[in-house]
Amino acid sequence: MSDTDTRSEPQRRVRGRRRDGERSRNAILREAGRLATVEGINGLSIGRLAEAVGMSKSGLFAHFGSKEELQVETIQAARAVFTAEVIDPALAAPTALERLRRLAENFLRYVEGGLYPGGCFFSSVAAEMAMRPGPVRDGAVQVLADFSGKLETALREAQAEGAIDPSEDTEQLAFELASYLSFANAQFALTQEPGTIERARRALEDRIQEAAAAA
Amino acid sequence: MSDTDTRSEPQRRVRGRRRDGERSRNAILREAGRLATVEGINGLSIGRLAEAVGMSKSGLFAHFGSKEELQVETIQAARAVFTAEVIDPALAAPTALERLRRLAENFLRYVEGGLYPGGCFFSSVAAEMAMRPGPVRDGAVQVLADFSGKLETALREAQAEGAIDPSEDTEQLAFELASYLSFANAQFALTQEPGTIERARRALEDRIQEAAAAA
Repeated sequence: MSDTDTRSEPQRRVRGRRRDGERSRNAILREAGRLATVEGINGLSIGRLAEAVGMSKSGLFAHFGSKEELQVETIQAARAVFTAEVIDPALAAPTALERLRRLAENFLRYVEGGLYPGGCFFSSVAAEMAMRPGPVRDGAVQVLADFSGKLETALREAQAEGAIDPSEDTEQLAFELASYLSFANAQFALTQEPGTIERARRALEDRIQEAAAAA
Repeated sequence: MSDTDTRSEPQRRVRGRRRDGERSRNAILREAGRLATVEGINGLSIGRLAEAVGMSKSGLFAHFGSKEELQVETIQAARAVFTAEVIDPALAAPTALERLRRLAENFLRYVEGGLYPGGCFFSSVAAEMAMRPGPVRDGAVQVLADFSGKLETALREAQAEGAIDPSEDTEQLAFELASYLSFANAQFALTQEPGTIERARRALEDRIQEAAAAA
């Protein structure tokens, strides 16, 4: 259930019972996320989504009051998936260097896992909406910035733990590592070739070992 | 004038005289390219473009028979710009290492020059159309693949000239250099911060020098 759902728990349960046989809100939002990486989040209207999930437009209007509400909730649901699949399992690692490696590896698995046909949901939305200010663009950009920030935090902490050379500029290094991840995602979305993910793995590991070498 | 314009030279001239006061075909296609990186090439209809350039829809229909024709010609015009600004001046350099450096630097200048508000025209279109097969997607992907191919060719030739270490895997190295360019473009489109272009310059130069060191 999303943060912006202000209905009380009993209200939601009643509504849930009324809609037996319809897909759950979360399942609808997952499909909305997939659709957004294929056709663009700007094309994600309640009418288009109704068609894709085989529900009536009025049924979807009961879930989401407007196209923008649907888009914002789709982003929130995708963020929950990203946090659960990429961020949280990485941050559970005991050392900073291991957190760094897991952040990168989890991102690549999330991309090659095919959860979204068009690759990373947020890269897709951010590219599409780059020049269109608003909550949809900002929501996607925020998740990408948080992710880059977590790479850099892990690098700084790894430096403090003596695992990364103190002379490395962690902001620059984070840029380079994020570059491999971002490009692998873009190329994989275009080609579906696993080789592009392997190239990113190799680039990441070479660069991390280079930065660790003198530590 | 684009490759697909099958009108004879005199026909075009007559048509050109008739349309005094209207913008030229090339100026219209430049505006179409700018608009495509802001609103998406899929949203680039003749009606939308007519509004943007202040011409009548019927006037634009005389230039381009259909939305798809307009999109394909927009891509061809953008490719001519990319070839003239990024590729050709780089390939004129006498050594392969210099061709490599100029390909990268010209790309960054093309991005930061702001010719297209949404950054590299082809990265923008490829991201938007990744999951939508057809001539628009294929046209954009082809330009990006050609560019990556030219980076790799320059690297292989630099290796043959003894300027890049023979042990370097040029395909892997091309992936890494293209990553910096691609990520800088995506970040610059989102933030308009010159710092992101500088990070790419530094990443490129560090990596090229590392690859050259043992040569």
